[in-house]
Amino acid sequence: MDSERYQRGWDKLKEIDGEAGERVIEALRDIAPDLARYTIEFPFGDVYSRGGLSLREREIVTVAALAALGNAQPQLKVHINGALNVGCSRQEVVEIMIQLAVYAGFPAALNGVFAAKEVFAERDALGQTD
Amino acid sequence: MDSERYQRGWDKLKEIDGEAGERVIEALRDIAPDLARYTIEFPFGDVYSRGGLSLREREIVTVAALAALGNAQPQLKVHINGALNVGCSRQEVVEIMIQLAVYAGFPAALNGVFAAKEVFAERDALGQTD
Amino acid sequence: MDSERYQRGWDKLKEIDGEAGERVIEALRDIAPDLARYTIEFPFGDVYSRGGLSLREREIVTVAALAALGNAQPQLKVHINGALNVGCSRQEVVEIMIQLAVYAGFPAALNGVFAAKEVFAERDALGQTD
Amino acid sequence: MDSERYQRGWDKLKEIDGEAGERVIEALRDIAPDLARYTIEFPFGDVYSRGGLSLREREIVTVAALAALGNAQPQLKVHINGALNVGCSRQEVVEIMIQLAVYAGFPAALNGVFAAKEVFAERDALGQTD
Amino acid sequence: MDSERYQRGWDKLKEIDGEAGERVIEALRDIAPDLARYTIEFPFGDVYSRGGLSLREREIVTVAALAALGNAQPQLKVHINGALNVGCSRQEVVEIMIQLAVYAGFPAALNGVFAAKEVFAERDALGQTD
Amino acid sequence: MDSERYQRGWDKLKEIDGEAGERVIEALRDIAPDLARYTIEFPFGDVYSRGGLSLREREIVTVAALAALGNAQPQLKVHINGALNVGCSRQEVVEIMIQLAVYAGFPAALNGVFAAKEVFAERDALGQTD
Repeated sequence: MDSERYQRGWDKLKEIDGEAGERVIEALRDIAPDLARYTIEFPFGDVYSRGGLSLREREIVTVAALAALGNAQPQLKVHINGALNVGCSRQEVVEIMIQLAVYAGFPAALNGVFAAKEVFAERDALGQTD
Repeated sequence: MDSERYQRGWDKLKEIDGEAGERVIEALRDIAPDLARYTIEFPFGDVYSRGGLSLREREIVTVAALAALGNAQPQLKVHINGALNVGCSRQEVVEIMIQLAVYAGFPAALNGVFAAKEVFAERDALGQTD
Repeated sequence: MDSERYQRGWDKLKEIDGEAGERVIEALRDIAPDLARYTIEFPFGDVYSRGGLSLREREIVTVAALAALGNAQPQLKVHINGALNVGCSRQEVVEIMIQLAVYAGFPAALNGVFAAKEVFAERDALGQTD
Repeated sequence: MDSERYQRGWDKLKEIDGEAGERVIEALRDIAPDLARYTIEFPFGDVYSRGGLSLREREIVTVAALAALGNAQPQLKVHINGALNVGCSRQEVVEIMIQLAVYAGFPAALNGVFAAKEVFAERDALGQTD
Repeated sequence: MDSERYQRGWDKLKEIDGEAGERVIEALRDIAPDLARYTIEFPFGDVYSRGGLSLREREIVTVAALAALGNAQPQLKVHINGALNVGCSRQEVVEIMIQLAVYAGFPAALNGVFAAKEVFAERDALGQTD
Repeated sequence: MDSERYQRGWDKLKEIDGEAGERVIEALRDIAPDLARYTIEFPFGDVYSRGGLSLREREIVTVAALAALGNAQPQLKVHINGALNVGCSRQEVVEIMIQLAVYAGFPAALNGVFAAKEVFAERDALGQTD
């Protein structure tokens, strides 16, 4: 195990996804601890830690891909939160979904907006107004 | 027909996709002229003409969605070109694909990179080095 | 805004999807009002208002596409209702799903049938026996 | 082997897909003869032989599903031919694709139209003008 | 109806999927009895009854396909149970999901693991420790 | 860079995919060298190097996932070769595709068989009869 890569990933995961990210890792610990470790090391330790795109742009890519695929709602919600955590505005998240109406169809766009609506309400309940 | 919306869409299509976009519209004219018109009006006249995200960010969304879905290679190539036309660098296009390795899998990322490689070679042949 | 196109779309939306369609639009109003407008204008004002296929056949296309893709259950249920509203029988909806067993696999067919079963029960509860 | 079911399937296959269907079966004979047999028995002997939807409506379902999924171009072309063979007009095939722009996105619609364009050209070359 | 094929399918369904499989068939009986019959005859009477791969390997294929597609969670859970019923260990099910992180992306893998976690808990509650 | 993990991945890549795998890495070197490195490190250095499933079973998972998704034909062919290289028989590859007819539909199964047919012919041409 490469502990520097793991530590870099863990820090990045907390920066982007916050407690929601930690809860995903926690839920994997008993059943698939190695997948928990890979999730920290490769996506966060390797990919999100790269330059070349800003964190905000990387989250735009992720939200766009997840909403287009439409088969991973829990991850979509985690990353709508992530996008807001690293500098996207709520309106920008909605604009991503409107853009997807063209390329993935209206149902993908609508389901993306409704996922965003849930996330925004959860953040409101926590007093996060960004 | 709303001619202002159509004209705005046509101008936007040419700004983003250039000749490749015009060729798509041309190919639709005889078989599905109304779909040609809708393609100009809704995606370009309505959606790409919005504020809230920059054109460059809209193309990041589009390239991410198309590469993640993986079932629309011609459109992916048109929009890799589009991304480069509105301010993405080649390296940024590659970074989008690397980001997708996490969320859509390595085959989606690799096929995205190979589509980008073809587009870059075509631009090189035309003397476009951006 | 093209008010004739909007009005035509709104009327068509109510004809096909009834109250379920209006509720979708209502749920978009606060978070993404422009997407609400686009949903009325393009799908309903432009596409469903075309000739060339009957409304019943357009709903067959929609139900088949949504059940095959399998990642938009809320829309699938709205459009199973829509299909019944514009002249499909319950048995025809089930036949669409059986046809999909061949092309999208048995899980898509089964999940389509189970979505239909929920819709039929909701209609029964409302005294709609068609 | 249930020879009546097989014979009914074989006749239905030829009625719908004509020589293109026979060529698919032929291509399977050496490598996967049982899959050739299943393809005749289940899709054609069981499903297409059902009542409840007309053959023309069954092909509308199939074309819609294949164009929406977007990952089975050879089968899409076979079934655009099939749709024309059992009573759809060319314009109706195009209308199916326009309808899909809403539910599966513009790339799916465009690629569906371009597949149709190839099929229409092949039929023109054979002197089939329907 | 080919009663030998039906009987063979029914026995195979019970061997693999147990009561969960029977419940699926039961839920289809009133709304789509022919689809219930086809589900017994083709997948179980024809395909699972073949040689060439062991039942355990067939369930590995099924679980991999369903988790990769990610749009059929009820069937995924039925077949995680099925895999365990015909000889896969819990750890092997988890390894399938880890393998899919590479080819279908981390969200598919994570959702596969969480489906497995639910199945394992249900089996624990029934005193099934395999 | 973790050189042990890289070396283990490189050896595993050559064991499974042989020259086809090396060619993929080579094609990435100029345009996306980090993605080449990640492809060696994570899929091969981490995942394929795990115990818990045999290499042959891991390739069954991969071939099933890629054929079900149907949007990554080059990778599907590489991994049909890989499956044969680590102990699957040609008939077993065909059985995987027949199994997928049930879960991903007949088009996915047929396109999987036709990909296998091409791979088998290429191996015949090289005198590989396994």
